[in-house]
Amino acid sequence: FRSGFGEVVFCQGKSIEHLTEIYRRFYMHDTNVLGTRASREQYEEVKKVVDCVTYDPLSRILSVEKEKQEKKGLVAVCTGGTADLFVAEEAARTAEFFGSNVVRVYDVGVAGIHRLFSKLEDIRKANCIVAVAGMEGALGGVLAGLVDKPVIAVPTSVGYGTSFGGVSALLTMLNSCAEGLAVVNIDNGFGAGYMATQINRLCKD
Amino acid sequence: FRSGFGEVVFCQGKSIEHLTEIYRRFYMHDTNVLGTRASREQYEEVKKVVDCVTYDPLSRILSVEKEKQEKKGLVAVCTGGTADLFVAEEAARTAEFFGSNVVRVYDVGVAGIHRLFSKLEDIRKANCIVAVAGMEGALGGVLAGLVDKPVIAVPTSVGYGTSFGGVSALLTMLNSCAEGLAVVNIDNGFGAGYMATQINRLCKD
Amino acid sequence: FRSGFGEVVFCQGKSIEHLTEIYRRFYMHDTNVLGTRASREQYEEVKKVVDCVTYDPLSRILSVEKEKQEKKGLVAVCTGGTADLFVAEEAARTAEFFGSNVVRVYDVGVAGIHRLFSKLEDIRKANCIVAVAGMEGALGGVLAGLVDKPVIAVPTSVGYGTSFGGVSALLTMLNSCAEGLAVVNIDNGFGAGYMATQINRLCKD
Amino acid sequence: FRSGFGEVVFCQGKSIEHLTEIYRRFYMHDTNVLGTRASREQYEEVKKVVDCVTYDPLSRILSVEKEKQEKKGLVAVCTGGTADLFVAEEAARTAEFFGSNVVRVYDVGVAGIHRLFSKLEDIRKANCIVAVAGMEGALGGVLAGLVDKPVIAVPTSVGYGTSFGGVSALLTMLNSCAEGLAVVNIDNGFGAGYMATQINRLCKD
Amino acid sequence: FRSGFGEVVFCQGKSIEHLTEIYRRFYMHDTNVLGTRASREQYEEVKKVVDCVTYDPLSRILSVEKEKQEKKGLVAVCTGGTADLFVAEEAARTAEFFGSNVVRVYDVGVAGIHRLFSKLEDIRKANCIVAVAGMEGALGGVLAGLVDKPVIAVPTSVGYGTSFGGVSALLTMLNSCAEGLAVVNIDNGFGAGYMATQINRLCKD
Amino acid sequence: FRSGFGEVVFCQGKSIEHLTEIYRRFYMHDTNVLGTRASREQYEEVKKVVDCVTYDPLSRILSVEKEKQEKKGLVAVCTGGTADLFVAEEAARTAEFFGSNVVRVYDVGVAGIHRLFSKLEDIRKANCIVAVAGMEGALGGVLAGLVDKPVIAVPTSVGYGTSFGGVSALLTMLNSCAEGLAVVNIDNGFGAGYMATQINRLCKD
Amino acid sequence: FRSGFGEVVFCQGKSIEHLTEIYRRFYMHDTNVLGTRASREQYEEVKKVVDCVTYDPLSRILSVEKEKQEKKGLVAVCTGGTADLFVAEEAARTAEFFGSNVVRVYDVGVAGIHRLFSKLEDIRKANCIVAVAGMEGALGGVLAGLVDKPVIAVPTSVGYGTSFGGVSALLTMLNSCAEGLAVVNIDNGFGAGYMATQINRLCKD
Amino acid sequence: FRSGFGEVVFCQGKSIEHLTEIYRRFYMHDTNVLGTRASREQYEEVKKVVDCVTYDPLSRILSVEKEKQEKKGLVAVCTGGTADLFVAEEAARTAEFFGSNVVRVYDVGVAGIHRLFSKLEDIRKANCIVAVAGMEGALGGVLAGLVDKPVIAVPTSVGYGTSFGGVSALLTMLNSCAEGLAVVNIDNGFGAGYMATQINRLCKD
Ligand SMILES: Nc1ncnc2c1ncn2[C@@H]1O[C@H](COP(=O)(O)O)[C@@H](O)[C@H]1O
Ligand SMILES: Nc1ncnc2c1ncn2[C@@H]1O[C@H](COP(=O)(O)O)[C@@H](O)[C@H]1O
Ligand SMILES: Nc1ncnc2c1ncn2[C@@H]1O[C@H](COP(=O)(O)O)[C@@H](O)[C@H]1O
Ligand SMILES: Nc1ncnc2c1ncn2[C@@H]1O[C@H](COP(=O)(O)O)[C@@H](O)[C@H]1O
Ligand SMILES: [Mg+2]
Ligand SMILES: [Mg+2]
Ligand SMILES: [Mg+2]
Ligand SMILES: [Mg+2]
Ligand SMILES: [Mg+2]
Ligand SMILES: [Mg+2]
Ligand SMILES: [Mg+2]
Ligand SMILES: [Mg+2]
Repeated sequence: FRSGFGEVVFCQGKSIEHLTEIYRRFYMHDTNVLGTRASREQYEEVKKVVDCVTYDPLSRILSVEKEKQEKKGLVAVCTGGTADLFVAEEAARTAEFFGSNVVRVYDVGVAGIHRLFSKLEDIRKANCIVAVAGMEGALGGVLAGLVDKPVIAVPTSVGYGTSFGGVSALLTMLNSCAEGLAVVNIDNGFGAGYMATQINRLCKD
Repeated sequence: FRSGFGEVVFCQGKSIEHLTEIYRRFYMHDTNVLGTRASREQYEEVKKVVDCVTYDPLSRILSVEKEKQEKKGLVAVCTGGTADLFVAEEAARTAEFFGSNVVRVYDVGVAGIHRLFSKLEDIRKANCIVAVAGMEGALGGVLAGLVDKPVIAVPTSVGYGTSFGGVSALLTMLNSCAEGLAVVNIDNGFGAGYMATQINRLCKD
Repeated sequence: FRSGFGEVVFCQGKSIEHLTEIYRRFYMHDTNVLGTRASREQYEEVKKVVDCVTYDPLSRILSVEKEKQEKKGLVAVCTGGTADLFVAEEAARTAEFFGSNVVRVYDVGVAGIHRLFSKLEDIRKANCIVAVAGMEGALGGVLAGLVDKPVIAVPTSVGYGTSFGGVSALLTMLNSCAEGLAVVNIDNGFGAGYMATQINRLCKD
Repeated sequence: FRSGFGEVVFCQGKSIEHLTEIYRRFYMHDTNVLGTRASREQYEEVKKVVDCVTYDPLSRILSVEKEKQEKKGLVAVCTGGTADLFVAEEAARTAEFFGSNVVRVYDVGVAGIHRLFSKLEDIRKANCIVAVAGMEGALGGVLAGLVDKPVIAVPTSVGYGTSFGGVSALLTMLNSCAEGLAVVNIDNGFGAGYMATQINRLCKD
Repeated sequence: FRSGFGEVVFCQGKSIEHLTEIYRRFYMHDTNVLGTRASREQYEEVKKVVDCVTYDPLSRILSVEKEKQEKKGLVAVCTGGTADLFVAEEAARTAEFFGSNVVRVYDVGVAGIHRLFSKLEDIRKANCIVAVAGMEGALGGVLAGLVDKPVIAVPTSVGYGTSFGGVSALLTMLNSCAEGLAVVNIDNGFGAGYMATQINRLCKD
Repeated sequence: FRSGFGEVVFCQGKSIEHLTEIYRRFYMHDTNVLGTRASREQYEEVKKVVDCVTYDPLSRILSVEKEKQEKKGLVAVCTGGTADLFVAEEAARTAEFFGSNVVRVYDVGVAGIHRLFSKLEDIRKANCIVAVAGMEGALGGVLAGLVDKPVIAVPTSVGYGTSFGGVSALLTMLNSCAEGLAVVNIDNGFGAGYMATQINRLCKD
Repeated sequence: FRSGFGEVVFCQGKSIEHLTEIYRRFYMHDTNVLGTRASREQYEEVKKVVDCVTYDPLSRILSVEKEKQEKKGLVAVCTGGTADLFVAEEAARTAEFFGSNVVRVYDVGVAGIHRLFSKLEDIRKANCIVAVAGMEGALGGVLAGLVDKPVIAVPTSVGYGTSFGGVSALLTMLNSCAEGLAVVNIDNGFGAGYMATQINRLCKD
Repeated sequence: FRSGFGEVVFCQGKSIEHLTEIYRRFYMHDTNVLGTRASREQYEEVKKVVDCVTYDPLSRILSVEKEKQEKKGLVAVCTGGTADLFVAEEAARTAEFFGSNVVRVYDVGVAGIHRLFSKLEDIRKANCIVAVAGMEGALGGVLAGLVDKPVIAVPTSVGYGTSFGGVSALLTMLNSCAEGLAVVNIDNGFGAGYMATQINRLCKD
């Protein structure tokens, strides 16, 4: 579904010259661009050349959308805590960029599981769920046990000590006994949002 | 889609008494059962009680299917080598048990990448692809780069030395730059097959 | 509270001669003995010398109780799955040996969280909870979020692939955001049961 | 025992806006607040809104106590070295916030074990001991061997080289053969202080 | 082949005094020098003493070439992405310094494998291939499967999360099933470029 | 150079039926076969079908050579100890199979470095050196410092404790400061022997 | 001091033919031999050829002592538990073989630290102390804090769960804050006993 | 030998107030002080109070020596490269502080092993050798194979990529097959210098 619609750029580590050139070229071809892991400095430099570029500092997405993609279906993006929002927003905005409707259900981690239960209704309406959590990372497995749609779990680097920069959450998610759960790299909101859209667009609406 | 159709049992580590009792109970309620990681010994004991049970020694699936689920859509299950078949068959048979048509594309690892290219046509017909590979585990990322459907990658414990029982393949898959790839636990063919079916059944056929 | 009541022996790796001699000596001094991680072979040899010794093959506890300790208070021992029972029973029997009443709440893992909720009433009556779980190990954190008594979490070596012999469950437990949770070594049911009793006996009944 | 008394906030990583809002809301509801891992900058911003907030730069605790909790029983907080104080104070102040009397026994690590022995009398009066240590982390096990009350061990990130940010101390504590020892995450003074209070409050005074 | 031609200096961590002295001494003996991992600051200080020194900020090579080595044969240096260039340039310039012709084939990673195929012709002309890649690191194995010359793979520290600073790419390369692949340390472009030249110079032209 | 000469089979984990079929097919096409990591049982079964198959229990190579490849150049295969021979022989026989002359220099580890020096003359005659070592694995780096030909280092799983099944030797080799050293997977004698031949055959004789 | 006295053989992994030949040759040259990590089977085969060989199944030492070395000074060998004896005896017998008097102080681990204190007098008479311990491994640091002679610590593979085959004990020892402590490989009693003798023999008696 | 002579302070992480107070107190009691891992800032503050304090920025030692200890015997301190000097100087100055003569033999790593051989004469005169090396860390084992005095190996954090902050060098040293080698923590020059002096002072001069 992607061809003809938009291109993805991994901004982190790219030089200003290189990045500016990429955005200018896509802009001239009327191609929408979703740039991930962009810094504010990169944004400011690209803006000098492509003035319709927009930047969201939380998700670090640097995007150009000449014409918005029509939205379909529904993806739910859930987080364990508020510190996970930077990853969740990367997922949510990626899904929206590629044409999914998104419902955000934030701060419903398992330490206070009643908050999760009060939102289950909403979550169950989605065709695919993205579960974002750091530290213990149990949200993914708990959600997969409660819904019968595919869950894409994203471990985040939030935590300290034995969270090991997201490894603890990653292992929790990989070892879940609940059915219908797959995992992407630590902090990879983009990957989860993209795949959620691939799944969402398969739907019979 | 699962309720009313079948139950899943994780046989590994369950005592004969416990397992036999589970199968008997489900059998009496006319419930289909998919048992994973079953040993031949477990099979022989369960068979004494539930004689329509069938066992596949490669995938180690111990199943009772009173009435076959009607099959829909298409899932592709691909492997890097022939040593990965035990995991691939677990995925394929799980997907079939829950109602997916499955195409098997085995031994198409990236060390001889032309074999993969000759099968691309077939793979692209599927709504969801399961990519099973051990050792370097590059198949998942290469496939995700070549198709635009969601790919579920399963690292296997096949290999030696620094394959670290599947960890090397797992890391490769988590770090893929290709879009539309998510990962399950090492050797978890069941998890991949189940989620592939969840996705496949969302489809507009 | 232990002195004057019973001695603990770590049987694993002790030679038959050495172990038999230990049991004989304690027996002659009328001391109760709790042996952990004993093999059936050790049991059979010790029995030749101390005939009132009893052996539980599930928990691998080899004990001599000349006079039962009077039981007080309540400890709850919960497990995620049935494969964790060998550890849970080590905890439960240790707690009983040292004088705690124990309620067993098994197979209430988070993949099917409704089973856990239906047992919460019982669990909340205890002064201290032991939470035993392998694989993703989320039970400890979920329980600590639901009760306001101290929870001692025991990761088990149950699982495969990235469960890494219990390391995944251990990390989940160490990283829980729920309050009132501490962790012991992988499979260390003894340590959890002992500490639970230390806590239980502090109580105002 | 917590409801009706105070709320806990994990300040690390929270934005100033978000944090300020949380503190204002709790203040308006007359709720005591214990904030952990707060930075001085966070303190200065919150203070602008809730002027009775206090900040301890060593423990990084940012608290509002409208009415002090009445203190009961006794918790001992011990450290191996002076570099561990930032964690020990987090534990001690958490325990005090929730209503425990606390005795501090600092710098009694096992490299100079006579200092520990000279303080044993004091430590044994407590209902629960918190043992805070980095590097080799042997303090937890040595203490548990010397007292018969529950010991909660907190590994710290103090050290260099193979201390691996607290992993060495954590492993030492998890592997102790002494009875009555459980462990929390690296640098998690809050968790230990909270659980120590849960245990302390169970006591018959 | 090296003696009589040039010396190698590992600049990282050397003090200005020490480094300046080394370059002055070699300069006075008319020895060519290849310095690796040099900072701009080191360059500026050395330049004050040896004015013909040149510095490439991308590869961080600080070199003195009084007389250029005659170039022979061909080495191909390939990368997966543009973020790997700093390592690739270290390899390429090292190979050139010691007398190899070099063809650069950049940004041909396996996520878009058609770009690699369009360059195969060029790559196959080389006597030895250097494959530089971070994240999943699959380029090395894919190349080794497509050419029959020795491939030296260099994992890079490019990536995030489970790339673990290059460990994921390293493991992928070590576990490749393709024949004719060996690996050097993470980011060690120098080592790969040097060995490629050793191999290239063995050739019958 | 391989095409038209011989095929490689990774025997480990292949079923008897599958393996026998592979050997029969190659035999009928007059193709030489080099099978690695074959068990004695596999040998005995294959022999029933292809009677000219030969098996070397030390290297576990199961080969069919209808017509010997003509040998050229020279490869040196060196080991640190005698326990490393199983890997060294895999390397040496692979190199011979594909047409290299091989000189074996065994048991010259760095703990008794004089033995190595007495053999340097011989080693320096080779076009490429394979250095096989377990435990500390220093042989690779020491050799690379003493010769100016490419060295392919093979860590072995020989050792105990912190040798971690070859990881210690692997790290030593990857971190060597000596020039002209690259590394293959733990115990991968095949990979080293194959690449050594690729290099050896590039030579001007 | 070793030359002219005895040779050391690492028996593990050596074939019967190879080992027998080594012992025969040394025997014919009247050289004493200390073989480590020998199996009973190796002993029985060597005995057929060199009948004065002796074997200790606990330490697995297979030795030939034609003429006993005169003993000097004193080395203390201490253990944490009785399960560590197999390593301690390897250390003690190695020290004796090379001419040290040895005092054994076993089962004085820190979980019951009074046992250690009652033996301090004896330990302090030694010129060098070997401290052998598994699981938490705190014995080394505690001893080094109590004596002013060099302590060589040997972690053992005794334990379960997070003892990780001796890694936990190793880290504890490497991170000790006590002065005068160095460490050898896991289970390496030989290395510790040898170095203790090197140190002991430096003494002024 | 230490009592009555000097005290050791671990400066890293100590607050200025705390550190200044320690130095003032020792100064008033005429006690020599060896402070390790001190920053320049700590030096400047302590100097305001104890003006005879001296600071060496390379080793980061902050010492007060009212009266120099008489020097005896000989310790050799060797390094693999010049980047290891900061650790070597910590070892050398510690040994001197406590009364050892020290010979420094720097930059004799195994990549250019002839430099080491040209210094062997000198090294063999010492009673104890300290071997300091980063990256591959082979120096310790090579030295232990060449001398018959005890060698204390210190891994350093020098290196990049898979040097893992000194872990690679540490493993190399722990796995050495050479006799008479023990290891201290990464970068722990102090520990090695202290133990070398303990050994040196045992000598018959
Ligand atoms: N399963 C266990 N895990 C950990 N520690 C144990 C276990 N069983 C017993 N212990 C401890 O080991 C001590 C006995 O060790 P031992 O003297 O070797 O029998 C007891 O006092 C307990 O503290
Ligand atoms: N330092 C800490 N370490 C671990 N968990 C904490 C810490 N401080 C607070 N928490 C937990 O985090 C919860 C609050 O998280 P939040 O809602 O993000 O402020 C509290 O209820 C505590 O259970
Ligand atoms: N980037 C690099 N990575 C690994 N080794 C290097 C590098 N650059 C130089 N070397 C090696 O380090 C040696 C020089 O080290 P030094 O004498 O400290 O300058 C050279 O002979 C090379 O073998
Ligand atoms: N011992 C080995 N280690 C690594 N790769 C091998 C080994 N033996 C064979 N291979 C590779 O595996 C391929 C054959 O795999 P298969 O088709 O499964 O027999 C060969 O082409 C080699 O590239
Ligand atoms: Mg589900
Ligand atoms: Mg795709
Ligand atoms: Mg709670
Ligand atoms: Mg105790
Ligand atoms: Mg090839
Ligand atoms: Mg060389
Ligand atoms: Mg001491
Ligand atoms: Mg020696």
